[in-house]
Amino acid sequence: MNRLQRYATTVWIGITLVIAPGSAWAVQPTTIDKMELLNWTKVAPGVWQSRIGAKELAPLDYADAPKIEALESMGDAAFPFDPKATRGQIAAPHASVRLPLEPSEKVYGLGLEFEGLNRRGQVYHLKVDHYGGFKGATHAPVPFYISNKGYGVFINTARRPSFYPGISNRKDSHLPPVIDRTTGKGWSSKPLSDAVEASVQGEGLEVFVFGGRSPLEAVRRYNLYCGGGVLPPRWGLGFWHRVHTRFSAEDVMNEVAEFAKRDFPLDVLGLEPGWQDFAYPCSFDWDKGRFPDPKGFVGALRERGIFVNLWENPYIAPSSSIIDAMRPYTGSHTVWLGEVPDYTIPAAQKVLLDHHQKTHLDIGVSGYKFDEVDGVDNWLWPDHATFPSGTSAIQMRQVYGLMIQKMHMDRFRAMNQRTYGLVRSSNGGAPPQGFVIYSDYYGHEGYITALVNCSLAGVLWTPEIRSAGSPEEWVRRFQSVAFSPLMMLNAWSSGKKPWSFEPVTDMVRDVIQLRMRLLPYVYSAFYDYNQKGIPPFRAMILEAGFDTQEQMVGGALHDADNPYAETRRLESTDQYMMGPSILVAPVFKGQTSRKVVLPNGDWYDFYSGARVGGGETIEIEAPLERIPLLVKDGGIIPLMPAIPNVASAQGDLPLEVRHYGKKNGVFHLYDDDGTTFDFEKGAFSLTELRVTVQDGKPQGNVQQPQGPWPSRYGPIEWNFMTVKDK
Amino acid sequence: MNRLQRYATTVWIGITLVIAPGSAWAVQPTTIDKMELLNWTKVAPGVWQSRIGAKELAPLDYADAPKIEALESMGDAAFPFDPKATRGQIAAPHASVRLPLEPSEKVYGLGLEFEGLNRRGQVYHLKVDHYGGFKGATHAPVPFYISNKGYGVFINTARRPSFYPGISNRKDSHLPPVIDRTTGKGWSSKPLSDAVEASVQGEGLEVFVFGGRSPLEAVRRYNLYCGGGVLPPRWGLGFWHRVHTRFSAEDVMNEVAEFAKRDFPLDVLGLEPGWQDFAYPCSFDWDKGRFPDPKGFVGALRERGIFVNLWENPYIAPSSSIIDAMRPYTGSHTVWLGEVPDYTIPAAQKVLLDHHQKTHLDIGVSGYKFDEVDGVDNWLWPDHATFPSGTSAIQMRQVYGLMIQKMHMDRFRAMNQRTYGLVRSSNGGAPPQGFVIYSDYYGHEGYITALVNCSLAGVLWTPEIRSAGSPEEWVRRFQSVAFSPLMMLNAWSSGKKPWSFEPVTDMVRDVIQLRMRLLPYVYSAFYDYNQKGIPPFRAMILEAGFDTQEQMVGGALHDADNPYAETRRLESTDQYMMGPSILVAPVFKGQTSRKVVLPNGDWYDFYSGARVGGGETIEIEAPLERIPLLVKDGGIIPLMPAIPNVASAQGDLPLEVRHYGKKNGVFHLYDDDGTTFDFEKGAFSLTELRVTVQDGKPQGNVQQPQGPWPSRYGPIEWNFMTVKDK
Repeated sequence: MNRLQRYATTVWIGITLVIAPGSAWAVQPTTIDKMELLNWTKVAPGVWQSRIGAKELAPLDYADAPKIEALESMGDAAFPFDPKATRGQIAAPHASVRLPLEPSEKVYGLGLEFEGLNRRGQVYHLKVDHYGGFKGATHAPVPFYISNKGYGVFINTARRPSFYPGISNRKDSHLPPVIDRTTGKGWSSKPLSDAVEASVQGEGLEVFVFGGRSPLEAVRRYNLYCGGGVLPPRWGLGFWHRVHTRFSAEDVMNEVAEFAKRDFPLDVLGLEPGWQDFAYPCSFDWDKGRFPDPKGFVGALRERGIFVNLWENPYIAPSSSIIDAMRPYTGSHTVWLGEVPDYTIPAAQKVLLDHHQKTHLDIGVSGYKFDEVDGVDNWLWPDHATFPSGTSAIQMRQVYGLMIQKMHMDRFRAMNQRTYGLVRSSNGGAPPQGFVIYSDYYGHEGYITALVNCSLAGVLWTPEIRSAGSPEEWVRRFQSVAFSPLMMLNAWSSGKKPWSFEPVTDMVRDVIQLRMRLLPYVYSAFYDYNQKGIPPFRAMILEAGFDTQEQMVGGALHDADNPYAETRRLESTDQYMMGPSILVAPVFKGQTSRKVVLPNGDWYDFYSGARVGGGETIEIEAPLERIPLLVKDGGIIPLMPAIPNVASAQGDLPLEVRHYGKKNGVFHLYDDDGTTFDFEKGAFSLTELRVTVQDGKPQGNVQQPQGPWPSRYGPIEWNFMTVKDK
Repeated sequence: MNRLQRYATTVWIGITLVIAPGSAWAVQPTTIDKMELLNWTKVAPGVWQSRIGAKELAPLDYADAPKIEALESMGDAAFPFDPKATRGQIAAPHASVRLPLEPSEKVYGLGLEFEGLNRRGQVYHLKVDHYGGFKGATHAPVPFYISNKGYGVFINTARRPSFYPGISNRKDSHLPPVIDRTTGKGWSSKPLSDAVEASVQGEGLEVFVFGGRSPLEAVRRYNLYCGGGVLPPRWGLGFWHRVHTRFSAEDVMNEVAEFAKRDFPLDVLGLEPGWQDFAYPCSFDWDKGRFPDPKGFVGALRERGIFVNLWENPYIAPSSSIIDAMRPYTGSHTVWLGEVPDYTIPAAQKVLLDHHQKTHLDIGVSGYKFDEVDGVDNWLWPDHATFPSGTSAIQMRQVYGLMIQKMHMDRFRAMNQRTYGLVRSSNGGAPPQGFVIYSDYYGHEGYITALVNCSLAGVLWTPEIRSAGSPEEWVRRFQSVAFSPLMMLNAWSSGKKPWSFEPVTDMVRDVIQLRMRLLPYVYSAFYDYNQKGIPPFRAMILEAGFDTQEQMVGGALHDADNPYAETRRLESTDQYMMGPSILVAPVFKGQTSRKVVLPNGDWYDFYSGARVGGGETIEIEAPLERIPLLVKDGGIIPLMPAIPNVASAQGDLPLEVRHYGKKNGVFHLYDDDGTTFDFEKGAFSLTELRVTVQDGKPQGNVQQPQGPWPSRYGPIEWNFMTVKDK
């Protein structure tokens, strides 16, 4: 698959310089004499590619085809820096590139990180791993960074890339003044650098540049170039619950009945390892003791509108029914004594997928949770393991989760069935994949930062709930997960239920139901992810008029604690946008109020419609029963009734359509069959909801739906939250 | 330099099998079919070498010549495992080896680590770095491991080796039973493995095996094969003090006067960056303002018996007098904007060494503190940096500190002057180098574990003092550092003096003076390091009859805190041996007593001579004024008078020679000129001190000194601490 051939290519260097040749700060090309000038080829409007050295296995090999029409509809963009200041080098064992960076630029991205936003001034070694240890070791270390100037750079490698964003100074680069630390002022352990350098131990490196007038445009181009964001099945946006690993079919049915009895929504029921007759490593075969009739079991849940999700890890137990067929394709080492398939080999994919289709999908299983695909060095294959295809162990690990997502997604697509599930590792090229990342790490604040950073990396994140130290923490975590891509309680070990903390049961139900009511809004936001590349949950830096309030603090010399007088960065990392209009400000245990940094313009309280501020930092009250939600001026939010689950909602659903603030607003309400890929062939509808405010009087209008699919939404009740219509 | 040619080689495989071909557990050679059988060559008695793939840059390139006579005097040893179970593989990008391991074997070593002793069941990625982040990132990640069975394995590589000791299972190896985690008992996240695997990203790997009947024998062979341990100049074992970085010559002289006035010993005065006219990066040139007359300054201190040590980091300031001469030999990137010399190039070494000899050594400077040679990714050269010799940046970093030690040590040797100093990184092959490692890390307990682990890696460690939160911590840290290879207060930032905590000033002076009194004992122990490879400060596992009391604990499943039900290892990591007879048991803040694990035999209190136990764990009182010291049965300990410093001690020094316990004992008291390498040509003396206990009556005997050097020690007073002589 040569992605470059998908779009009419243009050799770009020497034809035209889109931007001025840079300031005095810019690298003087002649001085970087040991590095080659990079050649750039335009591969889509606003997207450029360059490569140094050999073509190697890469994440984009597992992306979908670029959404060229959508990219074209965005128009073109300027190449974001002086192409003559871009360099590459092959110097064994490394391939490296060097791209210019201005002194004031901020660098975001680099994948799923639990700390901070701006990556400038910190080295990242991107390795697919459990979170922790060193910067860049994480479940989805996506080698994509975004500048606040409005462009993105993607390093398309399956090796472990190192990034030096605005840190590390070549001797032949533009150097800041050198300072004597003993007597001078302003000495820094990390002198300002004029570049981002990135490298791998490998034989080549491919680089993509995504232009834009804003960070959001760069992110959108990246997402669209990877094939557009996933549109989950509608049921995937409801409530998920995972049960204890030793639960039987009967245990599950009893638990499901409890949800109905207590009036808690339930859309997806997740089975953990024990659905199999052997796990850790896995057989992938149903345990006949706990699940004597898998088809009947899955069918009985589907009758109740509940979808079944199956946990698995990829390591094959000696007793699995597929071990003999798979053995020719497994690597040199085991994981938990299970063999490790080499899924770069199509025949290996076929062994697993045929088995899964026959024993899972054909009886109605909706999707998977792919665990342990990130690895921990102590139990994964070693870095020197070998695989039958010759793919190195490092590359295999770096894209293992990505490959597994892609191969399953393609099988679901072949069945014309959408899926939504979970995965514990990912990489670049993943936007179209219907899998949400989770972690064993359990910091609530870090979970929110992760959600924010994932929106800059084309991946989705769930701040799943496993347990809590108090009713307060329990409800605060539920409030966060209800405003995330996947609303899940993961009780595989604790056996907890949503009602396990009695004092806050009603609050928990309320916020789950609020999320259910917001489904038309959230589902439409995912459609924008799919069609326009706009992340449905996204970092504030993707919002116009937002200031991260970044500050550098500290730096006092201390011989034991801070011998380099290092500074520390403060940023606003704990709030984000959901869909076009809602700013979500999660609350953590111990807080009764919190700071919210508001972008420019006027912002309104979701619950009351009252103005709360604009272009400023406010302190907002956060009573336990409510997560602060703030709505943009002109925001339109459709809400449907709270329902037990998506699949059981029959007939037309009446809508309450809210309007906030004083400005005109518009919202495109998306609908389709909710489960197949027919929407890609036009089987959908888009209904424009429009509010015009004239002389202080709001007016709501509903346009005739566009598209052949009949919208399921019924009578609309307008609710002007700020400007009253009487 | 071909180290193999130094000893008559024997192709070993196929000639004789020294041990039986292993148990049922041993790897079945035919099953590891993708890996090559390793060929072993005997390179010294009890030392074997093998190599797979290309010869690459390696730490032993920077060792001294093996002490073959000393190795021969140890006699031969058996090859420690079935050679047919040893394998190697080149599979790009990795070179790897696989050596057998029995189920009950323990694996020690892998260099300077601040946590734990037994490395089995944990992956280590050895990288020269500041301590922290991942296992194996440390100042001296020496790729040498020791089995409790009594052998050692050294991977001679300048790349970053990964070690999988008893962890990671090849599918074609001997596998333990696989367990269903859902229902089975005894599932482990880390199944028992039958091998140690080690690998690098590189084109070859050289392996050395050191045989022995005990771990100590393996360590001795390693140290001797690297050239034997350093014998420091005698003054190096006295008291070291480092002054504030902005001190002038006058400030220093005032501070020195304070030491004399307060009756505190002082042997070495360390100057921090500010002795230079530019630092961080460094000029290496004296600051004419603070030090107008360097020669006079150094000479004035020498008159007082005080030696000057100079701090430097290797990164060259633009204003340095050597920058132009060095520039042709510097790498692509700067560190703190200073250029980075490529010291694999002899001409680069010469530029620095000629400068240093002329401006430092020829005026009497005694040695250096080489800081920042370990690096932190945020400020070191990046992994893809290039160097004029073509040496990769990763290799350069891994042996940078080692190379710098070796080149300076060679220059000191050429001047027939011993040196003792500090360095912040090292690697294999370092035993002969006169440099002690230190860290910015500051955990007191970790410092002791580091001291213990360094003894298994051929490097020395100082638990230097920088500050303390209380007088109690201050005195406890002084007690530890007084029983370490280098007794130093490092006050470059805090400006602290030994008397800075008034309530404990006498206790601090007492323990410094006790160390000064023990100099004959400690200096003799270093001679054993030099001649026999016995570490002067060493892990208890090198002591016969010691049990580490290792236990595995924990492992309760918890979905948030311990989802893999991982166990935790408890071991005794906080005690060690000094010289032949003294067990040192440091005390940490908050403790008034501590547990001590006693090896078999009887042990006696250093201060009272009373028996405290043997072959058991005891709880020992630890009053603030004393560090617990326990002496082996028959131990003989010579003490000289407390003196202000080593160099000022004139005339014969009377000795108190103590004997502990009820057994006969012998001690070889070493003496020489204390400063030159003439001892290597025979200019030393060894005096045998012997105690015979007959019918409960001890008798002390002093043998006529052997060797031409006149012993400086004068009249001997015997002190039978346990068995009274009246």
